[in-house]
Amino acid sequence: MWIANAWYVAAWLHELEPGRIHARTIIDQPLALYRTSGGEIVALEDRCCHRFAPLSLGRLEGDDLRCMYHGLKFAPDGRCIEIPGQKLIPQSACVRRYPVEIVGSWVWVWMGDAAVADRNIIPPTLALDDPGYRLMAGALDYAAHYLLIDDNLLDLSHLSFAHEKTLGLDMPQWADERPRTVALERGLRFRRWLRDHPPRGFMKKLGERVDVWNSYDFLFPGIFLQRTAFYPQGTAEQTGGQEPAGLPLFYRIDEQAVTPIGPRAARYFYAVGTRASDIDADKLERLFSVTTTAFYEDKTIIEAQQKLIDLDPERRMLPTSLDAGPTQFRKLVYGWLAAEHGAPRVAVPAAD
Amino acid sequence: MWIANAWYVAAWLHELEPGRIHARTIIDQPLALYRTSGGEIVALEDRCCHRFAPLSLGRLEGDDLRCMYHGLKFAPDGRCIEIPGQKLIPQSACVRRYPVEIVGSWVWVWMGDAAVADRNIIPPTLALDDPGYRLMAGALDYAAHYLLIDDNLLDLSHLSFAHEKTLGLDMPQWADERPRTVALERGLRFRRWLRDHPPRGFMKKLGERVDVWNSYDFLFPGIFLQRTAFYPQGTAEQTGGQEPAGLPLFYRIDEQAVTPIGPRAARYFYAVGTRASDIDADKLERLFSVTTTAFYEDKTIIEAQQKLIDLDPERRMLPTSLDAGPTQFRKLVYGWLAAEHGAPRVAVPAAD
Amino acid sequence: MWIANAWYVAAWLHELEPGRIHARTIIDQPLALYRTSGGEIVALEDRCCHRFAPLSLGRLEGDDLRCMYHGLKFAPDGRCIEIPGQKLIPQSACVRRYPVEIVGSWVWVWMGDAAVADRNIIPPTLALDDPGYRLMAGALDYAAHYLLIDDNLLDLSHLSFAHEKTLGLDMPQWADERPRTVALERGLRFRRWLRDHPPRGFMKKLGERVDVWNSYDFLFPGIFLQRTAFYPQGTAEQTGGQEPAGLPLFYRIDEQAVTPIGPRAARYFYAVGTRASDIDADKLERLFSVTTTAFYEDKTIIEAQQKLIDLDPERRMLPTSLDAGPTQFRKLVYGWLAAEHGAPRVAVPAAD
Repeated sequence: MWIANAWYVAAWLHELEPGRIHARTIIDQPLALYRTSGGEIVALEDRCCHRFAPLSLGRLEGDDLRCMYHGLKFAPDGRCIEIPGQKLIPQSACVRRYPVEIVGSWVWVWMGDAAVADRNIIPPTLALDDPGYRLMAGALDYAAHYLLIDDNLLDLSHLSFAHEKTLGLDMPQWADERPRTVALERGLRFRRWLRDHPPRGFMKKLGERVDVWNSYDFLFPGIFLQRTAFYPQGTAEQTGGQEPAGLPLFYRIDEQAVTPIGPRAARYFYAVGTRASDIDADKLERLFSVTTTAFYEDKTIIEAQQKLIDLDPERRMLPTSLDAGPTQFRKLVYGWLAAEHGAPRVAVPAAD
Repeated sequence: MWIANAWYVAAWLHELEPGRIHARTIIDQPLALYRTSGGEIVALEDRCCHRFAPLSLGRLEGDDLRCMYHGLKFAPDGRCIEIPGQKLIPQSACVRRYPVEIVGSWVWVWMGDAAVADRNIIPPTLALDDPGYRLMAGALDYAAHYLLIDDNLLDLSHLSFAHEKTLGLDMPQWADERPRTVALERGLRFRRWLRDHPPRGFMKKLGERVDVWNSYDFLFPGIFLQRTAFYPQGTAEQTGGQEPAGLPLFYRIDEQAVTPIGPRAARYFYAVGTRASDIDADKLERLFSVTTTAFYEDKTIIEAQQKLIDLDPERRMLPTSLDAGPTQFRKLVYGWLAAEHGAPRVAVPAAD
Repeated sequence: MWIANAWYVAAWLHELEPGRIHARTIIDQPLALYRTSGGEIVALEDRCCHRFAPLSLGRLEGDDLRCMYHGLKFAPDGRCIEIPGQKLIPQSACVRRYPVEIVGSWVWVWMGDAAVADRNIIPPTLALDDPGYRLMAGALDYAAHYLLIDDNLLDLSHLSFAHEKTLGLDMPQWADERPRTVALERGLRFRRWLRDHPPRGFMKKLGERVDVWNSYDFLFPGIFLQRTAFYPQGTAEQTGGQEPAGLPLFYRIDEQAVTPIGPRAARYFYAVGTRASDIDADKLERLFSVTTTAFYEDKTIIEAQQKLIDLDPERRMLPTSLDAGPTQFRKLVYGWLAAEHGAPRVAVPAAD
């Protein structure tokens, strides 16, 4: 069971090449994505209404899309505008068109009722399009339910263990201290100081020890927008543990989106970078490479976790104080599921 | 649910090598096929009655077949004639023998009640064994329900799109004009003129423009017997759109058989060729190669179509005037299914 | 449905390297196996109680095991002894510890109620740890239900057919004569003379013909402990068909264990060898190689058999006099299943 009435990231904008039709699946619905001559992105149901051939195997004719099985042709709005050898085109001859928005280099698709699609609830990203920043982007497929990836991002304590050699920064604080959590309309906000961190590698220039202000918003379905700001040691103390006001020594940005494909498949879009002044291209590549390595660490654990869940789906997880974030977010998700599907209460097992 | 009381093509005769046992599966039933010393083809159930080891892993001993798990031996009629260390052989010790016929280089197996197997309903093929013709043969496996392949062959409008560069002959007529259809006892007959076709490649010698008479029978489970005859431009007009009487300039033959293996598997046997006087060996190879390429075009679309159907099995296809052939043939199939399984009416989804 | 209250072979002892955590699955339960500093083998549930990450992806810290997802740490008895950032550790924070015993180089794990685990019912093996013998050990995975492998070992008539060129020794007696069978508490004992066997290869030195005394115990879940003793021709006659008393000319030992992994997966541990005086290292390697080849012969047949069973699960096998062993043993297994699951009668199809 899926939440359809939501925006999902379908692709990085740069993935969609002019003149090509791209196949994507989101919440078990197949999509054909392409650019019109005007640069607009079109998302059509990737299934011809005639005999269910995929339109992504079809041909672009101007801004129209022709199914290359029996030749039905569709306008960008999904209406069939030609059936070979047939003059009358019935009204029902159409494929679904999905609302599309481009925000922050991401192509967002509304998978539910188009009448209630609201462009304004797409969150502004942090720095994806900001020339003052330098970021690198990637994507990764998981053989797991998207909520297991969400759980991972909603509890960064795992940085001290799963990523102790990559993202964990040798800091037990990720696991030993809990962030403050604030409810947002479509997710949660996390904030915390990580004190007395010894920078490594090219960041040693920041000093022997720094205080790190880490804050991120996590929004449905799995939008992760994180700022990690490095300040001189003592700043956490000076601010009384509150959000710092001045400019940091160094500013790391992580922007990620988890998109469910099907019950056991999800795509993970991610970008990492800093202010342009913080880093040169070489070091950014290194940062990106370490980050990618870390996501493969997650992928190994999460896919194994999914298999263990499937081996014994009735088993209950042990709640700990680490799980505040995942638990709160799942409550939101189950509430939205219940609302959308009109059920008074939805029973959802660990990873469904 | 399958129609068992029918002849299915199990193999090209030349595939069955003397001294070897060949494993085949038709409508979910495993078969072991071999040649006797007299050249007869035997088709036994490929599952020893004792412990269900496959007989195709066994050993030919003269015309008998021995299971090489525990040594039970079977005569060509399926009776067990030896159980090691046991004198009494119970009557129930046997494997099923299937009626076999060889017609047109195809090995046909009757999968249902042997008592009602009628050799005379096997259709004569066009030219498979005719020395006046030169044909090449191949086979291809599909990960799809056989009826999706039948649909494909029952509506050649797709030649203008799926095969526009291979079989379509640059002719929109395949899609724009409908063939005449005649009901046969076990299928449908299609006939049409394709006028003013500009021959390509080595066929340019036929003239700048020709008229093409295309006619084929399509019979259960997926026998496709097609003649494509090239005539001087104007012949269609002269015949008043009827079948031409005289000898054509060029005569193309396509003979194909679709055999269901299981719910999502089918084998496609095909041969293509011409009158011996129409073509030399080189050009026949070229013709075969283009035809094979075209069938891979179909395979890509049909396997994708199957996946889209399975993603949402309840969805209904849009009927168009293109679908007269597929629709009529499915009605026949559903009727035969209902008759064989004793149901007053059988509800069968798109591809089951 | 599985019998949990039993000892299962999880590994060869030499497979478990110090400092490594090994993942194994037995009867659908995931296990993490490791050695403590004291050399003890620990078997824990390979699923952290917190979020179900596999502990086998974790880290050994002394004799403790830390989950490397969120850092929970477990003592060798399965108790959680650390939750990062949380002082109170609830009693329910633990993973299951399984009783382990090492007998005959095999690591045995009790998969059921630890309170009724009885070390004394583990059968002593024949020669696995005896310096007077020289054996080689291997392991093989089957994509089949373990009872199909048991069936195979409970009816050695297949040696004359499946292994006619490897283990069958060119002797039709395996199939033509039946062994005597004695019921044991947890299995069956088989004994027989195979007379007038012509030794092959390096065993020709034993004489032109020998009598072979073959005897093995077969115990749940699939423990096969076999002695094959070669005597001068005539010994069978002299003993009146009874067990011989004197030392044999040559002594072959086969020790095997079948362990169910899941419904269609099993692991097969095997060792083969002789008295140290009977063989040199070269010839032992040859003996091991032939034996391994034979097990691949079984694997091919049994995996095919499993597929044929799954294609038509309702079909009934034909009982023959060959099946006394498999039939008796299955009765035992179904009885134990019924006893453990509290059912008056358990209906179990061919391979479940």
